[in-house]
Amino acid sequence: MPHIQVEQHLPGITGLLEYRKDSAAPIRELTQLLLRGPSSLTQGERELIASIVSYGNGCKFCTSAHTAAANVLLGDNTTTQCVITDIDTAPVSEKMKSLLHIASLVQKSGKLVSEEAIAKAKNTGATDMEIHDTVLIAALFCLYNKYVDGLGAATPTDPEFYTALADRIVHHGYTRLPQGYNHLKNTVK
Amino acid sequence: MPHIQVEQHLPGITGLLEYRKDSAAPIRELTQLLLRGPSSLTQGERELIASIVSYGNGCKFCTSAHTAAANVLLGDNTTTQCVITDIDTAPVSEKMKSLLHIASLVQKSGKLVSEEAIAKAKNTGATDMEIHDTVLIAALFCLYNKYVDGLGAATPTDPEFYTALADRIVHHGYTRLPQGYNHLKNTVK
Repeated sequence: MPHIQVEQHLPGITGLLEYRKDSAAPIRELTQLLLRGPSSLTQGERELIASIVSYGNGCKFCTSAHTAAANVLLGDNTTTQCVITDIDTAPVSEKMKSLLHIASLVQKSGKLVSEEAIAKAKNTGATDMEIHDTVLIAALFCLYNKYVDGLGAATPTDPEFYTALADRIVHHGYTRLPQGYNHLKNTVK
Repeated sequence: MPHIQVEQHLPGITGLLEYRKDSAAPIRELTQLLLRGPSSLTQGERELIASIVSYGNGCKFCTSAHTAAANVLLGDNTTTQCVITDIDTAPVSEKMKSLLHIASLVQKSGKLVSEEAIAKAKNTGATDMEIHDTVLIAALFCLYNKYVDGLGAATPTDPEFYTALADRIVHHGYTRLPQGYNHLKNTVK
């Protein structure tokens, strides 16, 4: 049971963002910008960063949601799992491997991001902006993971829930659902 | 040296927020709302949450900045240090002690926030909104700490820098400095 009274039909982050809409607005805006805004990283690559950080923090809700979103955006159901299992053997570019390693370090502690990890990223072609965005996306998902688990938000076990959520964040993004968009609500049991 | 090229005269978070102003805007907005907006927690109490989380993450820049801000807002130079050293013997209310314990748990992992920690907060009079805001402020400062240290941002050692920064965030808040507000810039060496 969540630690505070949120709407029961809205599990995970969804109920928290509705609980305090004024703080939700800039969180949604930041996420939309970093994960869906213009970037030299694809949306799928950015969802991989969200997935690996959420997995590292043990946040089941966020890991399931962003793994599902990454799967849709990458067009396969295996890459995200491979990245989570072992970055170095995953079917992603050398640049993405180095950025995912940085994201994993940020998840543990910002202080662990070494000169070596940064040099490796730059040597594989990562720009300053890509390194900046990787660190900030990783930091943002630490916020999300701690927000969701720190308030004991409900975590659905039905995979269908995450399929519907992924459909929403892939096709609609991270902004608030418009009136009449009932796709997600109808799926939450 | 920072891992990416930021303006040299802007250390810590200040250079990062200038590096990418579009992502900085919602971060500033969220911080202003949570730390300076209407709340049943005082601004000083909310800066205590920022301080204890930053200290727990070992982020020297944020710990120094928010300790300095909390000192100004609380009107003394000892309470914040007492809170950081030992919450239970610090000169704050029982409610604040329980909320600071929750913030410390969130800093380590959201999953550590136990039913017992929440029950204690509620028994000392904490409302759902105060618990929500404590968790979200703690999560936000994990974002800041990881952003600052993950990009190797410079950490001034001169205490005068943090005195000037505290003056800015106490009297002006977390929004962007308006044109002509040179107080901080003049102090950064």
